[in-house]
Amino acid sequence: MSEKALLAWIRSRPSPGADPSFLALDTGIGDDCAVLATEGGDALVVTTDMLVEGVHFRIEEGAARIGRKAVAVSLSDVAAMGCAPRFVFVSAGLAPGTPDDAARDLVDSMNAIAERHGAIVCGGDVVASPGGLTLSTTVLGVGRTGRVLRRSAAEVGDRILVTGDLGGSLRGGHLDFEPRCAEGVALAARPGVHAMIDVSDGLSTDLHHILEESGAGARVEAACIPISAAARATAERSDRSALGHALNDGEDFELLFTADPEEAARLLAEPPFETALTDVGEIRPAAEGAVLVLDDDEERPLRAEGHEHLC
Amino acid sequence: MSEKALLAWIRSRPSPGADPSFLALDTGIGDDCAVLATEGGDALVVTTDMLVEGVHFRIEEGAARIGRKAVAVSLSDVAAMGCAPRFVFVSAGLAPGTPDDAARDLVDSMNAIAERHGAIVCGGDVVASPGGLTLSTTVLGVGRTGRVLRRSAAEVGDRILVTGDLGGSLRGGHLDFEPRCAEGVALAARPGVHAMIDVSDGLSTDLHHILEESGAGARVEAACIPISAAARATAERSDRSALGHALNDGEDFELLFTADPEEAARLLAEPPFETALTDVGEIRPAAEGAVLVLDDDEERPLRAEGHEHLC
Repeated sequence: MSEKALLAWIRSRPSPGADPSFLALDTGIGDDCAVLATEGGDALVVTTDMLVEGVHFRIEEGAARIGRKAVAVSLSDVAAMGCAPRFVFVSAGLAPGTPDDAARDLVDSMNAIAERHGAIVCGGDVVASPGGLTLSTTVLGVGRTGRVLRRSAAEVGDRILVTGDLGGSLRGGHLDFEPRCAEGVALAARPGVHAMIDVSDGLSTDLHHILEESGAGARVEAACIPISAAARATAERSDRSALGHALNDGEDFELLFTADPEEAARLLAEPPFETALTDVGEIRPAAEGAVLVLDDDEERPLRAEGHEHLC
Repeated sequence: MSEKALLAWIRSRPSPGADPSFLALDTGIGDDCAVLATEGGDALVVTTDMLVEGVHFRIEEGAARIGRKAVAVSLSDVAAMGCAPRFVFVSAGLAPGTPDDAARDLVDSMNAIAERHGAIVCGGDVVASPGGLTLSTTVLGVGRTGRVLRRSAAEVGDRILVTGDLGGSLRGGHLDFEPRCAEGVALAARPGVHAMIDVSDGLSTDLHHILEESGAGARVEAACIPISAAARATAERSDRSALGHALNDGEDFELLFTADPEEAARLLAEPPFETALTDVGEIRPAAEGAVLVLDDDEERPLRAEGHEHLC
């Protein structure tokens, strides 16, 4: 069963609500984070991610980079909701014989990336993991319920924008990316910004997540995709083009979002942060599907060819 | 490095607080849960646990029992704080080729145990795990900050009480225990209940956690320890006594707590729940250390001989 099939099955299960408390479940499975809401309008968003040795990293990449990635991946999910990360929890399964230095490097790198983005590691678990290093990270972020940005909020006519550039993950970007936390919060403060997601599976697949949840289609201009230098370098030794890497490789952890045309124009004219912003296309009616417009105006379907984690 | 040594090192790190938000960090690493507090006096407690195939369960024990355990272990941590579990997040690393039925059994069993205790699974991650099934569970629980029960609150003269009976984990109890959620909440409502922990590492070790955090000693009466029938059966084929199993085996997930003598007497006379309650000893000054009083009044040191997870 694919991850997608399993998640669809999980979402189809009936689920009674929990008893009332000062926090109530607003949105469960199906976005970058679950959303818990207070009566006062505060939102607590929660995400959890697991990274497994040999799947998401190689041990040779070093404990410091691996620990950093584990936390950064979850910080990015909070950023994708337009919320500020605050509290980090880590479960670590350490292989027998893990050197003390490696364990300390893991902890230090996790603390450092959390603190760099205004969060703090405040709990966790440490266990033995004979199959290799496994890290599970949970991050709690805060925002206002009215300004939590969801995948489902794209509107026909919205422009589609992306931060930074894409396609560098295979050359180390998947470890060393900077989660777009401040950018996510800044975008949530703009009323014309509608839907948002982080590019974890590749732009092609993550845009499809927005389209599916919003019931919309899209036209994406190939010439506008911000292809990273690393994607071009990767393409020189690959059977795929630089554009293909930028659209499909995943683990860029840039923010992909939609905004009404006026807000998009304002953001592009006066960006609220230094990170690059690029307009890559337009949200269209669902009936038009997802279309990639090539340089010669040829059109072809934009398929979700990004990463899908296999069970 | 042992888990204990690693945790001590982690706690020794300087940690700047996160920016202000509607939730502030009250207590970080060092108890069953971290405690986040609102200005209004509500508490959100958070715990995360990881279970690894071959360490915490065998795959032959069946997906349903394994999934149930993964959630129940974290529910028990919330119970140990005297809080009510509400929101459950699960990261699952599935071995390649995991049958669809097993994946569904995992999900169903997790949902069932969560809902049985008033909580709901509202997020997660599913990844490939070549080294075998790995489950990481995070549970958020709610309470009032003034009535969160901590390990550090034991007072000299308190009675030491425990729910249920002990020592059955090796005969299946480690999978099929019922987390003491309602009991934990009921105990937190009693002003004379002071410190609490769940028995995950064995009474001997978990009592030491209370003593270390509270700066206290204890006298435990061996004759009072509620030894389970399973512990007696285990001892018949073991080189250790039934008492040894009850004191040290761990994974009983009963609640171990302290209460002033008047509150303890009231609880024993009119228990607020059906689960058995037993008085096993008294909190004493730290200088007296931890003492086990045997049936013939012989005294010996009560050592922390329970489970310590190895890194």
